[in-house]
Amino acid sequence: MNKKVINALIMLLIPIVIWYSPAPEGLADGAWKLFGFYLAAIVGLILKPFPAPVVVLSAIAGSALFLGNTKAVLSGYATTTAWLVFSAFALSVAFVKTGLGRRIAYHLINAFGGTVLRLGYVTALLDFVVSPATPSNTARCGGIVFPIMNAVAKSLGSEPGETANKAGRFLMVNTYMVTKVTSLMFLTAMAPNALAGDFMAKMLGVHLDWGLWALAMIVPGIAMLLVVPYITYLFNKPTMTTVDNKKIAAEGLAELGPMSGAEKTLVGIFIFALLGWALPSILAAFGIKFKIDATAVAIVSMVASFCLGAIKWDDMVANKGGWNTLMWFGGIIGLSDALAKAKFFEWLADVMQTHLHFGDNGFVALVIIGIISVAIRYLFASGSAYVVAMLPVFLAVGPAAGVNPMALALVLCASNSYGGALTHYGGAAAPIVFGAGYNDVKDWWITGGVVAIVCLVLTFVIGYPWWGMLGIL
Amino acid sequence: MNKKVINALIMLLIPIVIWYSPAPEGLADGAWKLFGFYLAAIVGLILKPFPAPVVVLSAIAGSALFLGNTKAVLSGYATTTAWLVFSAFALSVAFVKTGLGRRIAYHLINAFGGTVLRLGYVTALLDFVVSPATPSNTARCGGIVFPIMNAVAKSLGSEPGETANKAGRFLMVNTYMVTKVTSLMFLTAMAPNALAGDFMAKMLGVHLDWGLWALAMIVPGIAMLLVVPYITYLFNKPTMTTVDNKKIAAEGLAELGPMSGAEKTLVGIFIFALLGWALPSILAAFGIKFKIDATAVAIVSMVASFCLGAIKWDDMVANKGGWNTLMWFGGIIGLSDALAKAKFFEWLADVMQTHLHFGDNGFVALVIIGIISVAIRYLFASGSAYVVAMLPVFLAVGPAAGVNPMALALVLCASNSYGGALTHYGGAAAPIVFGAGYNDVKDWWITGGVVAIVCLVLTFVIGYPWWGMLGIL
Repeated sequence: MNKKVINALIMLLIPIVIWYSPAPEGLADGAWKLFGFYLAAIVGLILKPFPAPVVVLSAIAGSALFLGNTKAVLSGYATTTAWLVFSAFALSVAFVKTGLGRRIAYHLINAFGGTVLRLGYVTALLDFVVSPATPSNTARCGGIVFPIMNAVAKSLGSEPGETANKAGRFLMVNTYMVTKVTSLMFLTAMAPNALAGDFMAKMLGVHLDWGLWALAMIVPGIAMLLVVPYITYLFNKPTMTTVDNKKIAAEGLAELGPMSGAEKTLVGIFIFALLGWALPSILAAFGIKFKIDATAVAIVSMVASFCLGAIKWDDMVANKGGWNTLMWFGGIIGLSDALAKAKFFEWLADVMQTHLHFGDNGFVALVIIGIISVAIRYLFASGSAYVVAMLPVFLAVGPAAGVNPMALALVLCASNSYGGALTHYGGAAAPIVFGAGYNDVKDWWITGGVVAIVCLVLTFVIGYPWWGMLGIL
Repeated sequence: MNKKVINALIMLLIPIVIWYSPAPEGLADGAWKLFGFYLAAIVGLILKPFPAPVVVLSAIAGSALFLGNTKAVLSGYATTTAWLVFSAFALSVAFVKTGLGRRIAYHLINAFGGTVLRLGYVTALLDFVVSPATPSNTARCGGIVFPIMNAVAKSLGSEPGETANKAGRFLMVNTYMVTKVTSLMFLTAMAPNALAGDFMAKMLGVHLDWGLWALAMIVPGIAMLLVVPYITYLFNKPTMTTVDNKKIAAEGLAELGPMSGAEKTLVGIFIFALLGWALPSILAAFGIKFKIDATAVAIVSMVASFCLGAIKWDDMVANKGGWNTLMWFGGIIGLSDALAKAKFFEWLADVMQTHLHFGDNGFVALVIIGIISVAIRYLFASGSAYVVAMLPVFLAVGPAAGVNPMALALVLCASNSYGGALTHYGGAAAPIVFGAGYNDVKDWWITGGVVAIVCLVLTFVIGYPWWGMLGIL
């Protein structure tokens, strides 16, 4: 039998087996059966018999038909979480489509890219600059940063194969490693962040809004961004050192031509979005209370992109990533909302509390959870699958072990991102970069392993004290 | 200034003017300001400065940003109404993609299509057979029925221009006229039906589920379907009479080849969906209570289409119509839900009650409303814009004039469909059919006018007594 068919049958079997098994003690029968559909979705996201949206919609379909809870399981499609990500997707699309992403890249290359190592830092800076408004990793890394760095490598005479070591091998894997750092710095820098935030709110009562997230992550994030290109450089040492960056930049900019109206519009919208997201926290620091909904800002930015001509609605409709994300994302939130309302996660936490002992030291427990949360990523070919499957478990285990909820939330939000650095399948952009052919699995895994460990250490060594200083723990 | 820019400015101005005008007596200030954004959406749907989804999302963006009600205005995206339509869209896509629609067509042509007039009836029957699961008019009429009838016309030697009168002129306009009848027969036969049903529930407390809708509409609908092709025939008399239907069918079927697995799967899913939608009402007639959510049935059918291979998820993602509908549809429902919660429609009904007098005869008032609801369609280039703009008004006026709520709901649901027959821009499929070039505006308008009048008469002469017999009035 075809592997896909077997995987589909496994997915099908899960809710059936759970349906006919007795609910564990302390869990209502309805919650147990609903969990069967959720588990089917998790397993489906891992085994991938179908595309992610179809997997999640299948679970919704089963639950709606057999549990009669259509309204409840659809609820996620109206959440501000799902719409924050979906709306900001329009900006990701616009950065690629207008060429603004490339223009920024060439200016950075011109200013700072005099050596191959410096090009690695240019990559980090470029990714960082664009990251606050590009929840699509695929668009940012795969659509903006990767094509440019790939072109740069080629223009340096470094092709896959014999000349890979000249520059491309380092530049390529570095592209991915830095995006795994920038992804943790903003709520809107990676799609699963908002999903993780949703779980934090549901299970820990910790509300990570855009400003708080950015504030907490910016310091450890910048520390990581400073070391990651260098680590990557050490493990993928290029034979070339200096680069004629002025020529590369001049050629790239000449090809782009003068800045278009669409690009200028996008700059304006981008600044509006950043201000809209950051301003409430900035003003709060001065004691000024100013509330503005982050999702409203994202929707306004999206609509402005269409109405002011940065991109066309048809560009958005043609962007499969946006729809796919809205579909599986909204679906998972709906299912997990329904589970939360059925008190499933409370039950899970109770069970964990009874059966697991991490000792009495909350900090040690947090470190252990952090390590496990990274290590387990070898098993997950998708960050989303990891969030859906493992986050509820960690969020149930943590408080039972006396971990500070805010610290737990922030560590997991951080490790969720660089955990994906480990493998060449750890995030949606990884296969794109790996597919360029400059890197081999061994080097990638070694680099990724070191990057993940260093980032985890920095999370505790720099992040943890920083959060303490901020007084949010 | 460009016309689109002017229209966009008009759209922009509406909420600003309303924002700074005092709220009318009896209406809360928040509801009045929210109405400003809703009105902007209505005007935008009529003037079309942007595609429909962008128009509606703009209104949502404005409301979310300035009224701080993001959650409320997004609520429509999780409604079973929006998802019923979106999910059933997958079946529309499947009917086109698998070729099953064409196969049914050729079988019908083979069996009944011996004359040009009979081909008109074959068109009606074909459209009717597919209509219960194709809420996309564009897919059903534009994607299945029209291409076949266009090919048939050409194979009869009837091209636009001199030979148009041979057969094509009748066949083409008839394609559109019959779809305007089948569209009223099932809740899932046209996207705006579900939206109309949503308004009925909100404003009249009348819940038209799938079974009730079909039961109420099937009798007047079939009566219309029997006369409409003949009327169209009279006003667009073809010079040709007999047709070598066996040859056309044989060639068409030969081109399709043997029935594919995807088609067979779709037949199964189609039957499942019909049973799922109709069974509760059928069983209720025998006193058996069986509840199954129509949206759950639609989602299961959609998911089954992907999982069992009738179509691919990518076919759905590539289908702009589905996303466009979900976006503007969910948005409008969210806005109107928010308006309903702010008691806007109650206020509207009060105002109407105070200022309008239709006399004391509820039936006469209903007839007047029916006539106006059709006549006003000359002004609307989109059925959806009509529903959004006019339905709330009619639903507020009706009860004030003593009209039976169920009768009002059913008459408006019916006239909503054939009202679109009037013009060559009255529905999404109209420009497609008109664009084939066989018809001129004058003939189309005359035919459409007579069709709409006859259908309206049949609604009262056959529909009204039938509803009385059913005991639902």
